[in-house]
Formats: sequence, structure tokens, C-alpha cells
Amino acid sequence: MPAIRSVECDLFRIPLAEVLSDAKHGDHTHFQLVTVRIALDDGTEGTGYTYTGGYGGDAIKAMVDTDLRPWLLGRDGGDIDAVHDGMQWLVHYVGRGGIASFAISAVDIALWDARGKREGRALWQMAGGDTDRCRAYCGGIDLNFPLPKLLDSIRGYLDRGADAVKIKIGQPELATDIERIAAVRELLGPDRHFMVDANYGMSVAQAIEASKAFARFNLTWFEEPIIPDDYDGYARITDETGMPVAQGENLHTIHEFEQAVARSKLAFLQPDGSNCGGITGWLRAAKLGADAGITVCSHGMQELHVSLVSGFPGDGWIEVHSFPIDQYTTRPLRLQDHRAVAPSEPGTGVVFDWDRLRAAHDPAR
Amino acid sequence: MPAIRSVECDLFRIPLAEVLSDAKHGDHTHFQLVTVRIALDDGTEGTGYTYTGGYGGDAIKAMVDTDLRPWLLGRDGGDIDAVHDGMQWLVHYVGRGGIASFAISAVDIALWDARGKREGRALWQMAGGDTDRCRAYCGGIDLNFPLPKLLDSIRGYLDRGADAVKIKIGQPELATDIERIAAVRELLGPDRHFMVDANYGMSVAQAIEASKAFARFNLTWFEEPIIPDDYDGYARITDETGMPVAQGENLHTIHEFEQAVARSKLAFLQPDGSNCGGITGWLRAAKLGADAGITVCSHGMQELHVSLVSGFPGDGWIEVHSFPIDQYTTRPLRLQDHRAVAPSEPGTGVVFDWDRLRAAHDPAR
Repeated sequence: MPAIRSVECDLFRIPLAEVLSDAKHGDHTHFQLVTVRIALDDGTEGTGYTYTGGYGGDAIKAMVDTDLRPWLLGRDGGDIDAVHDGMQWLVHYVGRGGIASFAISAVDIALWDARGKREGRALWQMAGGDTDRCRAYCGGIDLNFPLPKLLDSIRGYLDRGADAVKIKIGQPELATDIERIAAVRELLGPDRHFMVDANYGMSVAQAIEASKAFARFNLTWFEEPIIPDDYDGYARITDETGMPVAQGENLHTIHEFEQAVARSKLAFLQPDGSNCGGITGWLRAAKLGADAGITVCSHGMQELHVSLVSGFPGDGWIEVHSFPIDQYTTRPLRLQDHRAVAPSEPGTGVVFDWDRLRAAHDPAR
Repeated sequence: MPAIRSVECDLFRIPLAEVLSDAKHGDHTHFQLVTVRIALDDGTEGTGYTYTGGYGGDAIKAMVDTDLRPWLLGRDGGDIDAVHDGMQWLVHYVGRGGIASFAISAVDIALWDARGKREGRALWQMAGGDTDRCRAYCGGIDLNFPLPKLLDSIRGYLDRGADAVKIKIGQPELATDIERIAAVRELLGPDRHFMVDANYGMSVAQAIEASKAFARFNLTWFEEPIIPDDYDGYARITDETGMPVAQGENLHTIHEFEQAVARSKLAFLQPDGSNCGGITGWLRAAKLGADAGITVCSHGMQELHVSLVSGFPGDGWIEVHSFPIDQYTTRPLRLQDHRAVAPSEPGTGVVFDWDRLRAAHDPAR
């Protein structure tokens, strides 16, 4: 057993190039990146991480440093399932989602990175080995963009090699959302994949009304129309409108995924390994979804999910997210023929440029 | 509007008199107490708090200090509903339960304490004003106590003026649980209220088998037989055995309470204001339960819940918990004619003995 010898956790607060807004989280000026570096006594090392929209980073780091680290030291870092479950039980009383899920995710990813290096396997191979590439769409946090700027942003995605896009909706008037969706659909042409995301800014009734109004735009999915907790509300939207609905970024425990898969009639499931228990959590959620016939996608941190969504059987999408974590790695996301290509090196393939992170870090609040 | 002028957060790690164990959290050697003191610019001050079984305290304090405090300063501390909901949305992405619920609880309780002082009202009056006293039972974390010691512990409760007790169950063999329950029932006599708590150490099938075996002991309730997330599992236990089931200490969001109330067929609901959003969260959960005909009780921190369970309409129970927070206040819990009596002073009536807390604090891990 390769015992865990050290656990180092760091928090970076990285400014965004511009202020980004969505329907429920307001303005984003920074994102937070929490990294965890683990060394094992067989000489392998692994790096994991999680991120937030600007809040919670200090609490995540505090949990890694004061709760998880003392428990992890000396344990078998090769038995990731046991370590994962042990962490969940250790902090169960203050856990079951929330900060604990983010902290556990960062540790879990670091252990998978070390496993891949030890076994000489890339993450897409460890995640199932289906293929090394997957569909990708560009998702903007663009609710506050005036329409001309929104369209410029979409053109930018297409220039980067994307052929599928997602925009934020949830304007004060539904007519404004419809106008923006119509303009983007016109720019994209009738066939490109096009998704919308309300960040749960709507009631079930509003989402049903919106879904009916959106029917003529051939949307691939409607993401988080309502709060993530209302599992039956999702099913009602699908039942009453036929709109394909998607969620996952706010499901943080396997039990939340069980509820959503059993009851929400989702067309797409979007687990985010940074907040659902790392790679172990993502793969467990993905299996639940796939077994139920739901297409498994991802949310955020494209540089990692490209390997998971590619390797896991099925034809899911990764989101190319507006938090550009991959720009602080040695291998920003690669698109080829509209597909995202997973790294082939052993481990997760996510290697941070620590100098760049330290230079960008803005500790002020 | 009384604006919030300062928010001070402290973490204490308090040793227990002896090591306590339950079925899922293992050994407890300390509890953590996180206090929040808020001053408003009308001169009122309030103290709130939360607690943990030994993990998560640093993360809770980090969230109060770095996420909530900057947002709180200058806001209207008199509009507690708005502040409560604002905090929930601020940390929603890393929240919806877990550490965020504990941090928000401590702030919320401080604002209620200040409100009571401003309005000259005791908490039992603010919570509904039904009465100033309620039923109480002593709950031990005693899974590891040999039977003679368990019975001594029960005798100690009776000597303190209690006439209702709860023990932990979840021994490796069901026969051992039955033997201990039989011995405690014999000691108590046939009529005293007697509850058991498995801390979700059982599967649904095990809980059904146990409930059938426990039927002859006239238990008031069976608490957390299974994991808190399996709402339908609770209903199956009740449906198949008729055993009254209870849960609540691990429900942290109003949506989790909605699920449990709608689906779990609970006989008793046990929200804990320290982890379900403070007094605002407790009252919202209590209303959900009461509207559905479920008896509303509490978990933990008896020195605060005595006011909530007394003032809120209904005939619920408070738990006199093994974490003796009230021993570090100026008014440890008072029992009179087997009832717990709520403090009559304005505010929550929970006033910490700071010197005693500082003296007991054990920073070492």
C-alpha cells in the first residue's frame, strides 16, 4: 500500500477578465481555485483541485487542512474508494454536500492523478477507455451582456472551433430571453447545438411557460430551469412541455443524484467532479445516470472533464466553462474537428503552471 | 434599520468528560463550539452559536469570517428573514447544507438574540408563546458503555429529574441491542418514555427486523434507523412495522425538510437550529412538520431549544444532549416536575461564560 505522506493545500483567487453575471449568483469578478497536492511513500505524487465562484474557498481549505489532512496521513492512498468513503463518514455530521463535497473532491482527484502516474494510464483510460475525445460546447456567463456583445461572444466561440453553445437566460421579461435566443439561433443556423441555462431563476410555472415559448428554437437542453432541490418539478416541466432538461452542477452527494435520476426525468446529467466527490464521485454519478438511460455530461473544469466524458461510455458533452482554469495549466483545452481531445499522459493530465497561478492570485477582497 | 456594525467569530474545542461513541461517528473526545457575536448600530448585541462533534469547526469559522462577515456589515440586522435568505443565496453554490448551514445558523441565532433584547421578548415568546416549558428526555452517546455502566447512566438521568431517556443502539448483533433495551426498559418501568437512536447504522431491511423485535418494549420512537437521505426508506419502516420513526438532526435545508415531511411518514421531526439555519430555519422546518401533523422536537443544544420547543405550539420533546454546552452558560438547563423551563430574559437566554469557555478550550488535536 502506498501510504499518504503529505497533503498540501493552497487557495488562489483569480480575477476574471471581465465581470460575468447569471440569474442567481449575480456578478462574478473572481473565481477561487483550491489545489491539493498529495505525496505517497512510493514516490508518486498527485494534484487535485476544486473551484468556486468566489465564496467558500477558505472554508474548503480549512476543512482539508484541519479535518481531512490529519486523517489522511498514513492511510493507503491506493485504495481510493476506501479513502473516499472514509472522508465522507469522517465529516458526515457537517457534510453530506456543501463545503465537504468540494474538499473531498480535491483530495480524491489528487489520489486519481497519483494512481494514473503509478499505473501509467491516462484518465480517459481509467474512466472507461471508450474514446479520447468528446463533444464540447462553449458556455457563457453572459446574462448581463447586451445583445450585440452576446452575439460577438458567440462568434468568438465559433472562431475557437466550437459548434455548440450555451447562453444564460432569466431576464426580467421572458420576451427578452426569447429575443436573445432567437438572435443566437439565427446566428448559429438551424442545425448547431444550442442550450440555455436559467441557473434556477424560475418557478416551475415560469419554466413551463418558457419551455413552451422556446420549443420553436430546437434547443438541445434547458439547464436548471428551477431550483436543484425540486426533483419532481423537473419531471413536471418535461411531462408538460417535452423540453429536454438538464441538471447536475448542484447535486453534491450520491443520494442527491439518486433522487434526480429516479424522479426528475432528466435528458442530460451534468455532474461536476469538483463538487460531487472528485473522480470517484463523478464516475458513481455517471453510472447512475447511464444505467437510467440519461446522457452523461459535465459542468465546469473542462481540462479534467474532457477525460471523464470521453472515456466514459456514451456521447456526452463537456462544457467549456467561463472560468478559464485551463489557462493556468500547461495544456489548455484542445479542440479538433469540433471535439475536445483528452490528454494522453498518465494521471489526470492537468498540470498547473504554479508561477502563473501565483502571479494571478489576488488576495484582496 | 439597525445596521450590522461588527461580526466576531470564535472557535472553542471543548473536551468531553469521557469518550462517547455512537454507531456511525465513532468516538467523540471533544465537541467544537463556534460562537458569533454581532453588534448593531442601535446598541443592541446578540450572540449566536453552532457546534460540531469535533470536525468542521475551522471551516465554519472560515466561512463566517471570509464569506458572511463582509456581506453582513452594514446590512439591516432587524430584517432577519432577508438576511437569512441573503446568506443562503450568497453561498448557494458551495452551500445548500453542510458547513454553510452551520455558519448561517450561528449568525441567524445572534440576530434573534439581538431582536429579543431590542423588543424585550424572551425566545419562547418570539417562537410562538405557547408555554415556557416542554417535555425533555436525556439522550446518551453511550453505544460503547458496558451494560452496567449504561444502567448507571440511566439512573443518573432519573436522579437529575428526567423521566424519559434515549440510548444509542447499533451493536454488531441485534440480540445485544435487544438485551440492552430490555434491561433499560426494566429499569425505567413500563410507562416512562424510552427512545432509541441508531445513528443510521442500519439498512432498511435491518431496521425493519429491529423494529419488529423492539415492538414489545413500548418505544416512543426509533430515531435515524437508516441514512437521513433515504426518505422513502423511512416510510417503508413505518409502513411495515408501525414503529414511530424520527429524524431531523441531519436535515440541513428547508428542501430536505420538505422531502422528509412529504415522504418519510415521520412521527417526530427533530430539527437542530445549530445546523438547519438557526432560529429562522428551525421555525420554518417546525411549521412544515406541524402543518403535516408531525410532533416537532429538537436535537442538541437544549439551552436554546428549550425556548423553541416550549414556545412553538405542540407537545414536542427537547433532547438533553451529551454535549454539555449549557454547562458553559450562566444558566444550565433547568428541569422542574420533569419539564424543562425556558429562560424568561429577553433574547435567547443563552449567555456564555466566556472565561469558562476559554479555560476549557483545548486547541491541540
